[in-house]
This record gives sequence, structure tokens and C-alpha cells, in this order.
Amino acid sequence: MSQMYSRVALIGLGLIASSMSHAMRRAGMTSEIVGTARSAETRETAEKLDLCDTVVATAAEAVVGADLVVLAVPVGAMEAVAREIGPHLEAGATVTDVGSVKREIVAAVGPHMPDGVHFIPGHPVAGTEHSGPESGFAELFDNRWLLLTPLPGTDVEAKERLTAFWQALGSNVDEMEIEHHDLVLAVTSHAPHLIAYTMVGVADDLSRVTDSEVIKYSAAGFRDFTRIAASDPTMWRDVFLNNKDATLEILGRFTEELFALQRAIRTEDGDYLHDYFTRTRAIRRGIVEAGQDTDAPDFGRMGKKP
Amino acid sequence: MSQMYSRVALIGLGLIASSMSHAMRRAGMTSEIVGTARSAETRETAEKLDLCDTVVATAAEAVVGADLVVLAVPVGAMEAVAREIGPHLEAGATVTDVGSVKREIVAAVGPHMPDGVHFIPGHPVAGTEHSGPESGFAELFDNRWLLLTPLPGTDVEAKERLTAFWQALGSNVDEMEIEHHDLVLAVTSHAPHLIAYTMVGVADDLSRVTDSEVIKYSAAGFRDFTRIAASDPTMWRDVFLNNKDATLEILGRFTEELFALQRAIRTEDGDYLHDYFTRTRAIRRGIVEAGQDTDAPDFGRMGKKP
Repeated sequence: MSQMYSRVALIGLGLIASSMSHAMRRAGMTSEIVGTARSAETRETAEKLDLCDTVVATAAEAVVGADLVVLAVPVGAMEAVAREIGPHLEAGATVTDVGSVKREIVAAVGPHMPDGVHFIPGHPVAGTEHSGPESGFAELFDNRWLLLTPLPGTDVEAKERLTAFWQALGSNVDEMEIEHHDLVLAVTSHAPHLIAYTMVGVADDLSRVTDSEVIKYSAAGFRDFTRIAASDPTMWRDVFLNNKDATLEILGRFTEELFALQRAIRTEDGDYLHDYFTRTRAIRRGIVEAGQDTDAPDFGRMGKKP
Repeated sequence: MSQMYSRVALIGLGLIASSMSHAMRRAGMTSEIVGTARSAETRETAEKLDLCDTVVATAAEAVVGADLVVLAVPVGAMEAVAREIGPHLEAGATVTDVGSVKREIVAAVGPHMPDGVHFIPGHPVAGTEHSGPESGFAELFDNRWLLLTPLPGTDVEAKERLTAFWQALGSNVDEMEIEHHDLVLAVTSHAPHLIAYTMVGVADDLSRVTDSEVIKYSAAGFRDFTRIAASDPTMWRDVFLNNKDATLEILGRFTEELFALQRAIRTEDGDYLHDYFTRTRAIRRGIVEAGQDTDAPDFGRMGKKP
């Protein structure tokens, strides 16, 4: 394993950045890792965990001398960080990000990138419901997809180097057009998260069913929703505000479909329900066959296997 | 461990009944287990797996001499089974069921129960997305709740015996009023399942995003929905048709709430979103603390731990 990059600056030290640090070391990369985070508490935790070779107080300091800069802050914080680091970036450096939306990030970050710096937006399609510097682990990206959404005229060599870096961290790398990325993720991530948050909110709000009942009997399906709805509130607020159009489009389709199923229940159209529920099984099979989920019942949670 | 019951008849040999058989044996119960299923293939599989001491072809045969009869068929099949077994039940026998709805089952089964037979409706709040006789495992009920919804005038001794039986299988046992059960389960199970089916259906249907994209990038949240949406179509058709009112009520509340969140996205009300997403985290903590789910990231799936 070569260095790949000699000095990597991690801006933000949450789940993704801390997992990148673990995965870089697992891969034997000898790059120097410089990290920073807005909160002093996060920086202290990162030092205690030895996530970086150096932890510095500002993004502007972190990028000095870095040939790879990773923006790993909530989407709403991207513009301020880009403005701060712009004047301090090295010529020839690559800047990438790990945000879950791409159009708004490109609009926010792009204008602050000086000539001679390669800005290549990226998104690791991986995560857990935990957040913060302590939640990272080296295996997070293994066999997960890393989506690059390169801008027209992107330097081929810089892109190939970034691709090799993510592959060394365990990822499969794909390229996607920016608008299409935001639509695909609205389907596979943003709408499901909003729906999970909604369902958990309804349960919490229903005065005729107590919270303690919701908790005790959650094993019947509900608890899967609560895992997703435990994800970081700031990150998700920013995702929805910055992928408004695609999310609202998918939620509109969802509502249509939900109304059709509600009508089938009210009119007792058992065949419609049965056909619908049979069709959705195939998608699950595809996901398990593609190695994107386990076939163990209940995700193998609690370590109980048949 | 005493016998508890000398002869237990399992009517239907799917996930729940096969798990009961495994859990009875794990508990060292010496009860004779007689099983039956409508499909010859299921009966053959049950014989091959040695799930029962005897497998017979009809429910009427299975209940002869049984002091416990467990109705473990889809809700829509309960009435026909009850009509078939009614004349063959032993005086003093207990009949219970494992259906996810209670009002309609009581209406369907009750009239066919002869005097001197104790009909005590029950519902193990446990399951996986897998179905059939091969999907059962002894740990399914461990630390999960078994809800009894006894009718007025239920024999106390019969109820205590059934309670002890389920406890021996690993369950915690609670009692609940029938209508309240159906409302609670609409929240913790039926509405979440319908919503998951809907979301997976939308993804499958969206021509601008291919199935292969949905599958590859599912790790961002969507794959959790596909697990639930892989559950048995017949079972779930019957649940919705037989818990229509409570399910439609909860879905109505869900839609209201979803519209409020959609409006917050459209009007870019970040505070509303952030507050909402913060509130839902507490429910997750409660579920983990109550031992109803694991705190391992991503349910500990794929065996990846931080």
C-alpha cells in the first residue's frame, strides 16, 4: 500500500471521517492525517482516540499542506467551510466531500475552490444510526458504494487517484450525474428516513397508546423504524433542506401509492394487497444477492439464528 | 420442567408454530406434539425436520386428545379451522391462537368453541421476515411479549397454565383488552408494515431509477424497509383486512404528520425538522434500554462492530 496521499485533512470528525481514519490505517496507508472539528469536545475525543496524527482548531489550518481534503460536515455547514479553506488550499490538492446530496453542495462549495484545485464531489453510501467521533469503525465502507459526481472537465488523474483511495478503504466506486444522484438517494435514503421519522413521531404522539406500550411491543416491526429515526438530527435536517425537490417528488409518489393501498384495505380488495406484497419480496432478494444486506432473520440482530 | 400440557396440537406449521416446537423442546417439555398443515409439502418438511412427534393430515385429527390447541394459521383461515375442530375438541382443553389481530379472530373462532373448552386468544409479539416450517428457532420468543386477550369469565386456572407455558418458551406475558390490542398493534406493527410495503413498491415502480440502482445503494436506509416488506404476503393481507379500522386510523394520523413534515421541507422550516428528529431519538433509546433491540450499529448486521 502506497501513501496515495501524503497528507489527508479531515474536516469534521463524525461517523464518516472517523471511519475513514480507521479504514486508512487498516489499509496500511502512511498518509499523515490532520483532523479538525468545530466543537472542542469532538476534537478532544478525537485526540483521546488517536484518530489523527494532528488535531487542529480550524479548517483553515487543517488544509495547509494537504493533498487530499475531505469535507465531512453536515450539508448546511459546507459553504462556510469552503469559504474558510479556499485561500489556504495547496495548488494541485484534491477536495472531496461525503455529503448525501450533491447539487446543493456543488453550488455551495464550487465557487470557493481556487484554480488548480481539483474539487471532486463524493458520497459514501454507508452509515449507521450512530454519530460522533466514537462511532467510527474500519469496516463501514467494505463492499458499499462510493458515488463520485465529477464536474465537467475534471482532471482524470485526480479522479483516478481518489477512486483508488476509496477502493483501498473497502468501497466499490461508481460515477453518477449530479441530478440523478439526488433522485436515486431520495428513493433509497431520504424518503425512507423521513417516513421512519414520521412513523415514530406518530407513535410517540398517540395519546391512546402509551410510550411504554410502543416500546414493549416494538419487536413486531416498529423497532426497525426507530433505528433509522435515531439518526443525527442536524445531518438529516440539512439533507431534506438541500434535496427538497427530489424528496418532495418521491414523497408525492409515496402518498399516491399509500392512498391506493388504504383504499384496497377499505374496500377489502385482498387480491390487490396480496399481489403488491408479493412483488416487493423480489427487491429484498436482489439486495441480499448483491451482498448489500444479510439474509439472517431480523438482520441477525441479538445474535439469534435459526 | 413439568409437562405443562400432555398433548399439544399445532394447527399450521409456519414460523411461529415451528419456533414453539423448538422452544418447547429446549425447555425440556415432554408434551407430545401433534402438528398439521394444509399443504402436503409443509407436512413433509415438518416430518423431515422432526418438528412434531406426529404429523397428521387434518386439523380435526390433530386436536383429538389434545389439552392445548394452538391455531397458528393466517387470520383469514381461522374460522374454517375453528369450524372443523369444534366437534373434535376434548372437554377441558384450552384453545389459543397466535394471530396478530384479536377482535376478528374472537368473532371468527369463538362461536365454534363448545362449552367446557377454554378459548384464550393470544399473540406472541415476535417474528422475522422469514416464513414456513424451516424458519423456526427456539429463541424467537426470548424476552418478547406474549399478549393474552382473555374474554370475560375466562377460567383463571386455564389462563395461568397457558401463561406458564408461554413463560417456559421464553416470553414475558401481559394481558390486554381486545380493542386496545388491535390499536396498539396497528401502531407498532400493522401501519409500519404497510408503510414499508408502500415505500418498496414506490422504489420498484419508479422508471427513472432502475431496480439495480435501488439495490446497489440500499444501504443508505432503504434496505431496512425491504426486510419488513419481505414478510409473508398471505399473513399480511389477512392482518390488514381484519384490522381495517385501527390500521386506517393510524395511517390517517401518519398522513397528517407526513404532510406537516413535507410542508416544513417546502417552507424550509429547519427548526421544525430538527425538533421533530430530536424527539424521535428518545423512543429508540427506550427500546434499547428495555432489551427489545440491540444498540449495535445497524442492528449488528454483517457482524461489523465498531
